[in-house]
Amino acid sequence: MATRWGIIGTSNISHDFVVAINTLQQTEHLVTAVASRNITRSQEFAKQFEIPRAYNSYLCMANDTEVDVVYVGTLNEHHYSVSRLMLENGKNVLCEEPFCKNAKEVNELIELARSKKLFLMEAMWMFFTPAFITLKEKIDQGIIGEPLQIISSFGTPMPESLIHQRNSGGSILELAVFSVYMSQFLFGPEKPQIYGTCGQLTESGFDKDASVILKYSNGRISTFFSHFKVKLSNEAIVFGTKGSIKLFK
Amino acid sequence: MATRWGIIGTSNISHDFVVAINTLQQTEHLVTAVASRNITRSQEFAKQFEIPRAYNSYLCMANDTEVDVVYVGTLNEHHYSVSRLMLENGKNVLCEEPFCKNAKEVNELIELARSKKLFLMEAMWMFFTPAFITLKEKIDQGIIGEPLQIISSFGTPMPESLIHQRNSGGSILELAVFSVYMSQFLFGPEKPQIYGTCGQLTESGFDKDASVILKYSNGRISTFFSHFKVKLSNEAIVFGTKGSIKLFK
Repeated sequence: MATRWGIIGTSNISHDFVVAINTLQQTEHLVTAVASRNITRSQEFAKQFEIPRAYNSYLCMANDTEVDVVYVGTLNEHHYSVSRLMLENGKNVLCEEPFCKNAKEVNELIELARSKKLFLMEAMWMFFTPAFITLKEKIDQGIIGEPLQIISSFGTPMPESLIHQRNSGGSILELAVFSVYMSQFLFGPEKPQIYGTCGQLTESGFDKDASVILKYSNGRISTFFSHFKVKLSNEAIVFGTKGSIKLFK
Repeated sequence: MATRWGIIGTSNISHDFVVAINTLQQTEHLVTAVASRNITRSQEFAKQFEIPRAYNSYLCMANDTEVDVVYVGTLNEHHYSVSRLMLENGKNVLCEEPFCKNAKEVNELIELARSKKLFLMEAMWMFFTPAFITLKEKIDQGIIGEPLQIISSFGTPMPESLIHQRNSGGSILELAVFSVYMSQFLFGPEKPQIYGTCGQLTESGFDKDASVILKYSNGRISTFFSHFKVKLSNEAIVFGTKGSIKLFK
Protein backbone atom coordinates (compact mmCIF):
# COMPACT_ATOMS: atom_id res chain seq x y z
CA MET A 1 0.00 0.00 0.00
CA ALA A 2 1.26 3.47 -0.89
CA THR A 3 2.46 5.95 1.71
CA ARG A 4 -0.27 8.59 1.79
CA TRP A 5 0.92 12.19 1.99
CA GLY A 6 -0.89 15.27 3.26
CA ILE A 7 0.49 18.62 2.11
CA ILE A 8 0.22 21.57 4.51
CA GLY A 9 0.77 24.98 2.97
CA THR A 10 0.54 25.80 -0.74
CA SER A 11 3.83 27.65 -1.11
CA ASN A 12 6.26 27.28 -4.00
CA ILE A 13 8.23 24.72 -2.05
CA SER A 14 5.04 22.66 -1.47
CA HIS A 15 4.45 22.88 -5.19
CA ASP A 16 7.96 21.60 -5.91
CA PHE A 17 7.55 18.84 -3.35
CA VAL A 18 4.39 17.50 -4.97
CA VAL A 19 5.96 17.67 -8.41
CA ALA A 20 8.79 15.52 -7.01
CA ILE A 21 6.42 13.07 -5.29
CA ASN A 22 4.54 12.65 -8.56
CA THR A 23 7.68 11.43 -10.31
CA LEU A 24 7.52 8.35 -8.06
CA GLN A 25 5.29 5.30 -8.49
CA GLN A 26 1.76 6.03 -7.24
CA THR A 27 1.76 2.57 -5.74
CA GLU A 28 4.53 3.77 -3.41
CA HIS A 29 3.81 7.46 -2.74
CA LEU A 30 0.46 9.18 -3.13
CA VAL A 31 -0.67 12.69 -2.23
CA THR A 32 -4.18 12.36 -0.77
CA ALA A 33 -4.91 15.72 0.85
CA VAL A 34 -3.84 19.36 0.98
CA ALA A 35 -4.53 22.02 3.61
CA SER A 36 -4.13 25.79 3.54
CA ARG A 37 -5.61 28.54 5.72
CA ASN A 38 -7.13 29.87 2.50
CA ILE A 39 -9.66 27.45 1.01
CA THR A 40 -9.36 28.96 -2.47
CA ARG A 41 -5.62 28.35 -2.57
CA SER A 42 -6.12 24.89 -1.14
CA GLN A 43 -8.69 23.98 -3.76
CA GLU A 44 -6.60 25.41 -6.61
CA PHE A 45 -3.61 23.40 -5.43
CA ALA A 46 -5.76 20.24 -5.19
CA LYS A 47 -7.14 20.82 -8.67
CA GLN A 48 -3.69 21.40 -10.19
CA PHE A 49 -2.29 18.14 -8.82
CA GLU A 50 -5.52 16.08 -8.78
CA ILE A 51 -5.42 15.71 -5.00
CA PRO A 52 -8.67 14.16 -3.64
CA ARG A 53 -9.24 16.35 -0.53
CA ALA A 54 -8.64 20.06 0.09
CA TYR A 55 -8.93 21.57 3.60
CA ASN A 56 -8.89 25.11 4.97
CA SER A 57 -8.05 23.83 8.44
CA TYR A 58 -4.89 22.12 9.69
CA LEU A 59 -7.00 20.24 12.23
CA CYS A 60 -8.97 18.58 9.43
CA MET A 61 -5.67 17.33 8.04
CA ALA A 62 -4.65 16.10 11.49
CA ASN A 63 -7.90 14.15 11.72
CA ASP A 64 -7.75 12.70 8.19
CA THR A 65 -7.31 8.96 8.77
CA GLU A 66 -6.18 8.46 5.20
CA VAL A 67 -3.03 10.52 5.66
CA ASP A 68 0.07 8.72 6.97
CA VAL A 69 2.60 11.51 6.82
CA VAL A 70 2.35 15.26 6.38
CA TYR A 71 4.71 17.59 4.60
CA VAL A 72 4.81 20.96 6.40
CA GLY A 73 5.47 23.69 3.85
CA THR A 74 3.95 26.66 5.72
CA LEU A 75 5.68 29.94 6.54
CA ASN A 76 8.55 29.35 8.96
CA GLU A 77 6.73 30.83 11.92
CA HIS A 78 4.10 28.06 11.80
CA HIS A 79 6.48 25.11 11.48
CA TYR A 80 6.55 24.35 15.18
CA SER A 81 2.83 24.68 15.95
CA VAL A 82 1.69 22.78 12.85
CA SER A 83 4.23 19.97 13.33
CA ARG A 84 3.21 19.70 16.97
CA LEU A 85 -0.50 19.51 16.09
CA MET A 86 0.22 16.76 13.58
CA LEU A 87 2.38 14.69 15.93
CA GLU A 88 -0.21 15.00 18.68
CA ASN A 89 -2.74 13.53 16.27
CA GLY A 90 -0.55 10.62 15.30
CA LYS A 91 0.81 11.90 12.00
CA ASN A 92 4.36 11.35 10.85
CA VAL A 93 5.99 14.67 9.91
CA LEU A 94 8.42 15.95 7.29
CA CYS A 95 8.88 19.65 8.10
CA GLU A 96 10.42 22.15 5.70
CA GLU A 97 13.62 23.95 6.76
CA PRO A 98 14.27 25.81 8.97
CA PHE A 99 12.75 23.35 11.45
CA CYS A 100 11.84 25.67 14.34
CA LYS A 101 13.03 28.98 15.73
CA ASN A 102 15.18 27.52 18.51
CA ALA A 103 16.55 24.29 19.97
CA LYS A 104 13.89 24.18 22.67
CA GLU A 105 11.08 23.86 20.13
CA VAL A 106 12.99 21.25 18.11
CA ASN A 107 13.69 19.18 21.22
CA GLU A 108 10.02 19.30 22.20
CA LEU A 109 9.01 17.95 18.80
CA ILE A 110 11.65 15.21 18.93
CA GLU A 111 10.50 14.13 22.38
CA LEU A 112 6.88 14.10 21.26
CA ALA A 113 7.67 12.07 18.13
CA ARG A 114 9.71 9.55 20.13
CA SER A 115 7.00 9.13 22.76
CA LYS A 116 4.49 8.36 20.00
CA LYS A 117 6.93 6.37 17.84
CA LEU A 118 6.34 8.70 14.88
CA PHE A 119 8.67 9.68 12.06
CA LEU A 120 9.93 13.29 12.28
CA MET A 121 12.41 14.90 9.92
CA GLU A 122 13.50 18.32 8.76
CA ALA A 123 13.30 18.58 4.95
CA MET A 124 16.89 19.71 4.46
CA TRP A 125 16.67 18.87 0.78
CA MET A 126 20.17 20.20 0.07
CA PHE A 127 21.67 17.00 1.46
CA PHE A 128 19.92 14.98 -1.26
CA THR A 129 20.94 17.01 -4.30
CA PRO A 130 23.49 15.51 -6.72
CA ALA A 131 25.76 18.56 -6.35
CA PHE A 132 25.95 18.18 -2.60
CA ILE A 133 26.48 14.43 -2.74
CA THR A 134 29.27 14.92 -5.30
CA LEU A 135 30.86 17.63 -3.16
CA LYS A 136 31.01 15.26 -0.20
CA GLU A 137 32.39 12.41 -2.31
CA LYS A 138 35.15 14.56 -3.83
CA ILE A 139 36.18 15.87 -0.42
CA ASP A 140 36.21 12.35 1.05
CA GLN A 141 38.38 11.23 -1.89
CA GLY A 142 40.92 13.90 -0.93
CA ILE A 143 40.63 15.79 -4.22
CA ILE A 144 41.13 19.14 -2.49
CA GLY A 145 43.44 17.82 0.24
CA GLU A 146 42.58 18.76 3.78
CA PRO A 147 39.50 21.04 3.77
CA LEU A 148 40.28 23.98 6.01
CA GLN A 149 38.00 26.86 5.10
CA ILE A 150 34.41 27.21 3.94
CA ILE A 151 33.14 30.58 2.75
CA SER A 152 29.48 30.77 1.81
CA SER A 153 26.95 33.49 1.24
CA PHE A 154 23.25 33.84 0.62
CA GLY A 155 21.90 37.34 0.20
CA THR A 156 18.85 38.53 -1.64
CA PRO A 157 17.27 41.98 -1.42
CA MET A 158 13.88 41.93 0.28
CA PRO A 159 11.76 44.95 1.28
CA GLU A 160 11.45 45.57 5.01
CA SER A 161 7.68 45.06 4.77
CA LEU A 162 8.15 41.59 3.29
CA ILE A 163 10.70 40.62 5.95
CA HIS A 164 8.12 41.67 8.54
CA GLN A 165 5.31 39.86 6.75
CA ARG A 166 7.24 36.63 6.39
CA ASN A 167 8.26 36.83 10.04
CA SER A 168 10.70 34.11 9.17
CA GLY A 169 13.15 34.48 11.99
CA GLY A 170 15.63 36.61 10.11
CA SER A 171 18.30 36.13 7.50
CA ILE A 172 20.15 33.36 9.33
CA LEU A 173 17.08 31.12 9.65
CA GLU A 174 15.71 32.06 6.24
CA LEU A 175 18.91 32.01 4.17
CA ALA A 176 22.03 30.96 6.08
CA VAL A 177 20.44 27.74 7.31
CA PHE A 178 22.07 26.06 4.30
CA SER A 179 25.49 27.39 5.23
CA VAL A 180 25.11 26.21 8.79
CA TYR A 181 24.12 22.71 7.70
CA MET A 182 26.93 22.51 5.18
CA SER A 183 29.43 23.56 7.83
CA GLN A 184 28.16 20.97 10.27
CA PHE A 185 27.99 18.29 7.60
CA LEU A 186 31.58 18.82 6.46
CA PHE A 187 33.26 19.94 9.71
CA GLY A 188 30.84 18.65 12.37
CA PRO A 189 29.23 17.05 14.25
CA GLU A 190 31.31 18.87 16.86
CA LYS A 191 29.87 22.13 18.14
CA PRO A 192 31.93 25.03 16.73
CA GLN A 193 32.94 28.16 18.57
CA ILE A 194 30.90 31.05 17.21
CA TYR A 195 32.26 34.49 16.42
CA GLY A 196 29.52 36.54 14.88
CA THR A 197 28.06 39.89 14.19
CA CYS A 198 24.81 41.21 12.76
CA GLY A 199 24.55 44.38 10.74
CA GLN A 200 21.12 45.57 11.66
CA LEU A 201 17.95 44.20 13.17
CA THR A 202 14.36 44.71 12.05
CA GLU A 203 11.90 46.40 14.40
CA SER A 204 10.74 42.97 15.52
CA GLY A 205 14.30 41.96 16.36
CA PHE A 206 15.17 39.76 13.39
CA ASP A 207 18.58 39.99 11.74
CA LYS A 208 18.53 41.72 8.35
CA ASP A 209 22.04 40.47 7.75
CA ALA A 210 24.62 38.37 9.49
CA SER A 211 28.31 37.65 9.16
CA VAL A 212 29.30 34.66 11.22
CA ILE A 213 32.56 32.81 11.80
CA LEU A 214 32.38 29.22 13.02
CA LYS A 215 35.65 27.86 14.36
CA TYR A 216 36.11 24.09 14.42
CA SER A 217 39.00 21.94 15.67
CA ASN A 218 42.25 21.49 13.71
CA GLY A 219 42.24 24.97 12.22
CA ARG A 220 39.00 24.51 10.29
CA ILE A 221 36.89 27.62 9.89
CA SER A 222 33.55 28.22 8.21
CA THR A 223 32.36 31.75 7.57
CA PHE A 224 28.96 32.61 6.20
CA PHE A 225 27.00 35.67 5.22
CA SER A 226 23.28 36.21 4.93
CA HIS A 227 21.71 39.45 3.80
CA PHE A 228 18.24 40.84 3.11
CA LYS A 229 19.53 44.13 1.71
CA VAL A 230 22.15 43.12 -0.88
CA LYS A 231 22.53 40.32 -3.39
CA LEU A 232 25.60 38.35 -2.34
CA SER A 233 27.56 35.80 -4.41
CA ASN A 234 25.14 33.05 -3.35
CA GLU A 235 27.74 30.35 -3.49
CA ALA A 236 29.70 28.13 -1.16
CA ILE A 237 33.38 27.38 -1.61
CA VAL A 238 35.30 24.74 0.28
CA PHE A 239 39.03 25.47 0.28
CA GLY A 240 41.53 22.70 0.93
CA THR A 241 45.29 22.35 0.98
CA LYS A 242 45.26 21.03 -2.62
CA GLY A 243 42.41 22.96 -4.20
CA SER A 244 38.85 24.13 -3.79
CA ILE A 245 35.31 23.23 -4.83
CA LYS A 246 32.59 25.76 -5.49
CA LEU A 247 28.85 25.17 -5.24
CA PHE A 248 26.75 27.87 -6.82
CA LYS A 249 23.09 28.58 -7.33
CA MET B 1 67.23 68.79 -10.42
CA ALA B 2 65.99 65.21 -10.30
CA THR B 3 64.81 63.54 -7.10
CA ARG B 4 67.57 61.04 -6.30
CA TRP B 5 66.40 57.63 -5.09
CA GLY B 6 68.21 55.04 -3.02
CA ILE B 7 66.84 51.50 -3.17
CA ILE B 8 67.14 49.35 -0.04
CA GLY B 9 66.59 45.65 -0.54
CA THR B 10 66.80 43.82 -3.88
CA SER B 11 63.49 41.92 -3.67
CA ASN B 12 61.04 41.46 -6.52
CA ILE B 13 59.09 44.45 -5.35
CA SER B 14 62.26 46.60 -5.42
CA HIS B 15 62.82 45.34 -8.93
CA ASP B 16 59.30 46.38 -9.94
CA PHE B 17 59.73 49.74 -8.26
CA VAL B 18 62.87 50.59 -10.24
CA VAL B 19 61.25 49.45 -13.48
CA ALA B 20 58.45 51.90 -12.69
CA ILE B 21 60.83 54.74 -11.76
CA ASN B 22 62.68 54.23 -15.04
CA THR B 23 59.52 54.90 -17.03
CA LEU B 24 59.69 58.49 -15.73
CA GLN B 25 61.92 61.31 -17.03
CA GLN B 26 65.44 60.97 -15.64
CA THR B 27 65.45 64.72 -15.19
CA GLU B 28 62.70 64.20 -12.61
CA HIS B 29 63.45 60.86 -10.92
CA LEU B 30 66.80 59.11 -10.84
CA VAL B 31 67.97 56.00 -9.00
CA THR B 32 71.49 56.73 -7.73
CA ALA B 33 72.22 53.94 -5.24
CA VAL B 34 71.18 50.50 -4.09
CA ALA B 35 71.88 48.68 -0.82
CA SER B 36 71.52 45.04 0.19
CA ARG B 37 73.04 43.04 3.02
CA ASN B 38 74.53 40.86 0.29
CA ILE B 39 77.04 42.78 -1.86
CA THR B 40 76.71 40.35 -4.78
CA ARG B 41 72.96 40.87 -4.99
CA SER B 42 73.45 44.59 -4.59
CA GLN B 43 76.02 44.75 -7.41
CA GLU B 44 73.90 42.57 -9.71
CA PHE B 45 70.91 44.81 -9.10
CA ALA B 46 73.03 47.92 -9.78
CA LYS B 47 74.38 46.40 -12.97
CA GLN B 48 70.93 45.39 -14.22
CA PHE B 49 69.53 48.89 -13.80
CA GLU B 50 72.76 50.89 -14.39
CA ILE B 51 72.71 52.33 -10.88
CA PRO B 52 75.98 54.19 -10.04
CA ARG B 53 76.57 52.96 -6.47
CA ALA B 54 75.98 49.57 -4.80
CA TYR B 55 76.31 49.12 -1.02
CA ASN B 56 76.30 46.12 1.30
CA SER B 57 75.48 48.32 4.26
CA TYR B 58 72.33 50.30 5.03
CA LEU B 59 74.46 52.83 6.91
CA CYS B 60 76.40 53.63 3.73
CA MET B 61 73.07 54.43 2.08
CA ALA B 62 72.06 56.56 5.07
CA ASN B 63 75.32 58.52 4.70
CA ASP B 64 75.13 58.92 0.90
CA THR B 65 74.69 62.66 0.42
CA GLU B 66 73.53 62.13 -3.14
CA VAL B 67 70.37 60.28 -2.07
CA ASP B 68 67.28 62.38 -1.29
CA VAL B 69 64.76 59.64 -0.63
CA VAL B 70 65.01 55.93 0.00
CA TYR B 71 62.64 53.18 -1.03
CA VAL B 72 62.59 50.46 1.66
CA GLY B 73 61.90 47.11 0.01
CA THR B 74 63.43 44.80 2.61
CA LEU B 75 61.72 41.88 4.35
CA ASN B 76 58.88 43.12 6.55
CA GLU B 77 60.75 42.55 9.78
CA HIS B 78 63.37 45.17 8.84
CA HIS B 79 60.96 47.90 7.73
CA TYR B 80 60.95 49.68 11.06
CA SER B 81 64.66 49.59 11.84
CA VAL B 82 65.77 50.55 8.32
CA SER B 83 63.23 53.36 8.01
CA ARG B 84 64.29 54.65 11.42
CA LEU B 85 67.99 54.60 10.48
CA MET B 86 67.24 56.53 7.31
CA LEU B 87 65.09 59.17 9.01
CA GLU B 88 67.72 59.65 11.71
CA ASN B 89 70.20 60.38 8.94
CA GLY B 90 68.00 62.90 7.21
CA LYS B 91 66.62 60.72 4.43
CA ASN B 92 63.04 60.93 3.21
CA VAL B 93 61.40 57.48 3.26
CA LEU B 94 58.96 55.50 1.13
CA CYS B 95 58.50 52.19 2.95
CA GLU B 96 56.94 49.10 1.38
CA GLU B 97 53.77 47.67 2.94
CA PRO B 98 53.15 46.52 5.59
CA PHE B 99 54.68 49.57 7.27
CA CYS B 100 55.65 48.16 10.67
CA LYS B 101 54.47 45.40 12.97
CA ASN B 102 52.36 47.58 15.24
CA ALA B 103 50.99 51.08 15.73
CA LYS B 104 53.69 51.97 18.28
CA GLU B 105 56.46 51.56 15.71
CA VAL B 106 54.52 53.48 13.06
CA ASN B 107 53.85 56.35 15.47
CA GLU B 108 57.53 56.50 16.41
CA LEU B 109 58.50 56.86 12.75
CA ILE B 110 55.85 59.50 12.12
CA GLU B 111 57.04 61.52 15.11
CA LEU B 112 60.65 61.24 14.00
CA ALA B 113 59.83 62.30 10.43
CA ARG B 114 57.80 65.28 11.66
CA SER B 115 60.53 66.42 14.03
CA LYS B 116 63.00 66.40 11.15
CA LYS B 117 60.53 67.69 8.54
CA LEU B 118 61.10 64.62 6.34
CA PHE B 119 58.74 62.86 3.93
CA LEU B 120 57.50 59.48 5.18
CA MET B 121 54.99 57.26 3.40
CA GLU B 122 53.88 53.63 3.26
CA ALA B 123 54.04 52.30 -0.32
CA MET B 124 50.44 51.06 -0.43
CA TRP B 125 50.59 50.80 -4.19
CA MET B 126 47.10 49.33 -4.44
CA PHE B 127 45.60 52.80 -4.02
CA PHE B 128 47.30 53.95 -7.22
CA THR B 129 46.23 51.14 -9.53
CA PRO B 130 43.64 51.87 -12.24
CA ALA B 131 41.39 49.06 -10.98
CA PHE B 132 41.26 50.51 -7.50
CA ILE B 133 40.69 54.05 -8.70
CA THR B 134 37.88 52.84 -10.99
CA LEU B 135 36.32 50.87 -8.12
CA LYS B 136 36.20 53.99 -5.97
CA GLU B 137 34.77 56.10 -8.80
CA LYS B 138 32.00 53.60 -9.59
CA ILE B 139 31.02 53.35 -5.94
CA ASP B 140 31.00 57.14 -5.53
CA GLN B 141 28.79 57.36 -8.64
CA GLY B 142 26.26 55.10 -6.92
CA ILE B 143 26.52 52.33 -9.53
CA ILE B 144 26.03 49.62 -6.88
CA GLY B 145 23.77 51.69 -4.63
CA GLU B 146 24.70 51.80 -0.96
CA PRO B 147 27.78 49.62 -0.38
CA LEU B 148 27.05 47.45 2.65
CA GLN B 149 29.33 44.43 2.56
CA ILE B 150 32.89 43.75 1.50
CA ILE B 151 34.15 40.19 1.30
CA SER B 152 37.79 39.72 0.40
CA SER B 153 40.33 36.95 0.61
CA PHE B 154 44.02 36.42 0.06
CA GLY B 155 45.36 32.95 0.65
CA THR B 156 48.39 31.26 -0.83
CA PRO B 157 49.99 28.02 0.36
CA MET B 158 53.42 28.55 1.90
CA PRO B 159 55.58 25.96 3.69
CA GLU B 160 55.92 26.44 7.44
CA SER B 161 59.70 26.86 7.00
CA LEU B 162 59.18 29.74 4.58
CA ILE B 163 56.68 31.45 6.90
CA HIS B 164 59.31 31.19 9.62
CA GLN B 165 62.08 32.40 7.34
CA ARG B 166 60.13 35.39 6.09
CA ASN B 167 59.18 36.25 9.67
CA SER B 168 56.71 38.62 8.09
CA GLY B 169 54.31 39.08 10.94
CA GLY B 170 51.79 36.50 9.81
CA SER B 171 49.08 36.20 7.22
CA ILE B 172 47.26 39.39 8.18
CA LEU B 173 50.34 41.61 7.80
CA GLU B 174 51.65 39.72 4.79
CA LEU B 175 48.40 39.19 2.86
CA ALA B 176 45.33 40.75 4.42
CA VAL B 177 46.93 44.18 4.65
CA PHE B 178 45.25 44.93 1.31
CA SER B 179 41.84 43.92 2.63
CA VAL B 180 42.27 46.08 5.70
CA TYR B 181 43.25 49.11 3.62
CA MET B 182 40.39 48.59 1.21
CA SER B 183 37.93 48.36 4.08
CA GLN B 184 39.23 51.54 5.64
CA PHE B 185 39.35 53.34 2.32
CA LEU B 186 35.74 52.50 1.43
CA PHE B 187 34.12 52.37 4.89
CA GLY B 188 36.59 54.36 7.02
CA PRO B 189 38.21 56.45 8.35
CA GLU B 190 36.15 55.46 11.41
CA LYS B 191 37.62 52.73 13.56
CA PRO B 192 35.58 49.54 13.08
CA GLN B 193 34.60 47.08 15.75
CA ILE B 194 36.62 43.92 15.27
CA TYR B 195 35.27 40.39 15.53
CA GLY B 196 38.00 38.00 14.59
CA THR B 197 39.45 34.60 14.87
CA CYS B 198 42.68 32.91 13.84
CA GLY B 199 42.89 29.28 12.87
CA GLN B 200 46.35 28.37 14.00
CA LEU B 201 49.56 30.12 14.98
CA THR B 202 53.12 29.31 13.99
CA GLU B 203 55.63 28.37 16.68
CA SER B 204 56.81 31.96 16.72
CA GLY B 205 53.26 33.18 17.31
CA PHE B 206 52.33 34.43 13.85
CA ASP B 207 48.89 33.73 12.39
CA LYS B 208 48.88 31.10 9.64
CA ASP B 209 45.36 32.12 8.77
CA ALA B 210 42.79 34.64 9.88
CA SER B 211 39.09 35.25 9.41
CA VAL B 212 38.14 38.71 10.54
CA ILE B 213 34.87 40.65 10.61
CA LEU B 214 35.07 44.45 10.74
CA LYS B 215 31.82 46.15 11.68
CA TYR B 216 31.35 49.78 10.65
CA SER B 217 28.47 52.21 11.26
CA ASN B 218 25.20 52.06 9.32
CA GLY B 219 25.20 48.30 8.91
CA ARG B 220 28.40 48.18 6.85
CA ILE B 221 30.51 45.09 7.33
CA SER B 222 33.82 44.02 5.86
CA THR B 223 35.00 40.46 6.24
CA PHE B 224 38.38 39.23 5.14
CA PHE B 225 40.34 36.03 5.04
CA SER B 226 44.06 35.39 4.86
CA HIS B 227 45.62 31.97 4.69
CA PHE B 228 49.09 30.43 4.38
CA LYS B 229 47.76 26.87 4.01
CA VAL B 230 45.11 27.10 1.30
CA LYS B 231 44.68 29.05 -1.91
CA LEU B 232 41.63 31.26 -1.42
CA SER B 233 39.63 33.10 -4.11
CA ASN B 234 42.06 36.03 -3.94
CA GLU B 235 39.45 38.59 -4.80
CA ALA B 236 37.52 41.39 -3.20
CA ILE B 237 33.83 41.98 -3.79
CA VAL B 238 31.94 45.07 -2.70
CA PHE B 239 28.21 44.37 -2.43
CA GLY B 240 25.71 47.21 -2.57
CA THR B 241 21.95 47.56 -2.58
CA LYS B 242 21.92 47.78 -6.38
CA GLY B 243 24.76 45.48 -7.39
CA SER B 244 28.32 44.47 -6.72
CA ILE B 245 31.84 45.04 -8.04
CA LYS B 246 34.57 42.41 -7.98
CA LEU B 247 38.30 43.04 -7.98
CA PHE B 248 40.38 39.99 -8.74
CA LYS B 249 44.02 39.17 -9.10
